Amino acid sequence: MAARIILDSSHRLILVISIFYIYISGSTSAAMHYGKPKQYKPCKSLVFYFHDIIYNGQNAANATSAIVAAPQGANMTILAGQFHFGNIAVFDDPITLDNNLHSPPVGRAQGFYIYDTKNTYTAWLGFSFVFNSTDHQGTINFIGADPLMNKTRDISVVGGTGDFFMARGIATIMTDAFEGEVYFRLRVEINRVLVFKGVRGVGFFPISRGGSKESLKIPVSR
Amino acid sequence: MAARIILDSSHRLILVISIFYIYISGSTSAAMHYGKPKQYKPCKSLVFYFHDIIYNGQNAANATSAIVAAPQGANMTILAGQFHFGNIAVFDDPITLDNNLHSPPVGRAQGFYIYDTKNTYTAWLGFSFVFNSTDHQGTINFIGADPLMNKTRDISVVGGTGDFFMARGIATIMTDAFEGEVYFRLRVEINRVLVFKGVRGVGFFPISRGGSKESLKIPVSR
Amino acid sequence: MAARIILDSSHRLILVISIFYIYISGSTSAAMHYGKPKQYKPCKSLVFYFHDIIYNGQNAANATSAIVAAPQGANMTILAGQFHFGNIAVFDDPITLDNNLHSPPVGRAQGFYIYDTKNTYTAWLGFSFVFNSTDHQGTINFIGADPLMNKTRDISVVGGTGDFFMARGIATIMTDAFEGEVYFRLRVEINRVLVFKGVRGVGFFPISRGGSKESLKIPVSR
Repeated sequence: MAARIILDSSHRLILVISIFYIYISGSTSAAMHYGKPKQYKPCKSLVFYFHDIIYNGQNAANATSAIVAAPQGANMTILAGQFHFGNIAVFDDPITLDNNLHSPPVGRAQGFYIYDTKNTYTAWLGFSFVFNSTDHQGTINFIGADPLMNKTRDISVVGGTGDFFMARGIATIMTDAFEGEVYFRLRVEINRVLVFKGVRGVGFFPISRGGSKESLKIPVSR
Repeated sequence: MAARIILDSSHRLILVISIFYIYISGSTSAAMHYGKPKQYKPCKSLVFYFHDIIYNGQNAANATSAIVAAPQGANMTILAGQFHFGNIAVFDDPITLDNNLHSPPVGRAQGFYIYDTKNTYTAWLGFSFVFNSTDHQGTINFIGADPLMNKTRDISVVGGTGDFFMARGIATIMTDAFEGEVYFRLRVEINRVLVFKGVRGVGFFPISRGGSKESLKIPVSR
Repeated sequence: MAARIILDSSHRLILVISIFYIYISGSTSAAMHYGKPKQYKPCKSLVFYFHDIIYNGQNAANATSAIVAAPQGANMTILAGQFHFGNIAVFDDPITLDNNLHSPPVGRAQGFYIYDTKNTYTAWLGFSFVFNSTDHQGTINFIGADPLMNKTRDISVVGGTGDFFMARGIATIMTDAFEGEVYFRLRVEINRVLVFKGVRGVGFFPISRGGSKESLKIPVSR
């Protein structure tokens, strides 16, 4: 969205604010079909990993999530039968830039997931990415259905704060690894998300690795 | 939102991307006041039903939801006293196109509800419609307060994926039937929702039964 | 967003619908840099307080929230150790316009919070403001991470109904008071939120205390 003064044919000044949306290619720089391609910075999508270690009664020190609700007959240290239907887990998982659990965390993924099918593995997610680093400040808020058995799943980005003010769109998640019922790692690609920039031009801009500054170099409505 | 090239009076080409929003009438085709009405397809809202059968300790085979959290003194097979305050139920309910529980499901409603008032019946909903059929692919994500005793209630559509990419707006829900504390059926009318279309014209379009194709026949910004 | 007919240089009528966004100053009326300032009403942000009294086994009559889920070893009347990690509380809290618990409530804050860190106090919120008064009709839906120990925190407004149709943006929350583990009061400032107005001009408008009517006096795209 860009504020722009147009002198129309009746010579009154009007303010036209337009929104520009770009699909960001996850693999290579997006070919852009409006305006002069040379002016555009290639956009990269954001990729993160988060690591979930489920409390099983014996790993209190390094567990990052815990079962806190379960249906009748189940308990809080073993995931319920029937594909864990009804279990709610609360988590505070480290976010890393690569798939190594021991890499320095760049933020925390905090929230909950619910197992919600009786005859296969599906979950429902409500969580935030909380960043507080030189690269990123702010939060991204996600909700959505997660049919675990699919290779990739799309969930909604429904809001954001700080660098991710009013973020909206979708993120693609993938189970990158899992070890029994103790550990799993999710890869999250934030590739089709808009954020709102209120500084130097007003508008929604595609999210990009460079944060606020780089995004602003993308000329919109031209 | 439609990309459109305007030659303004200073003869520079600018790209104006506009957003067009239409209230979709739930009962009859919306009269539209911009442009030539004859060009427009009537828009229908989407109506679905979903069916919730609460686990009571004896109906494991056909129950679609289960109480998984409750306040002190309550258990997981009987809804708590005090208007069920504090109960959390997880559900995986079939979605049908009519009000018959035995109609072929077109998707699943998956998520949770919380009873959250001590002196009347209200709930808080967080769930997704998960579609995987020839008619619809993708998910719609809902959250919101549900004051059960009102005939109709509005909840928020906060996101969507697939055919419902970046869906946003409200849905009107209605308790279509209930049988004691074992079964209820909700009617969900998705009547004021925008989805984002990235193909053949970029922009937000009103949702309509016909899915992607029909929506695109609605001329925007004309 | 305002519908507007522009006669472009090729003399075809086109409909340009533009979006206008204003940061609302929380402290004083926002200086506005487009158009003629005299025409604008000062915008105030909305400020509310809500009051949470946690059930501890003995205060059933006036408690407004209850622990309903907890990790292994914890119970439903005492917040869990380890910074309450894993506790889920359901609440139905009165909303007041000032910080007095006994002021007449103008609505209810309904939903849940989750304590989600093992080594400090953080929560994850999912709730609605439910208004049904002469001043406000409708709901505002919030989700987001709440790092309690920070003086102020931003959470997302992800949707709304009624007067707050399609609300979106952020709200700033602050712990205004707390008394041990029995009572806390949150101040919520809704200062950077857009709502959608479908009547007399179509578009997103900044939220303002005056509700629908006053907002409409703000001339957009002029």
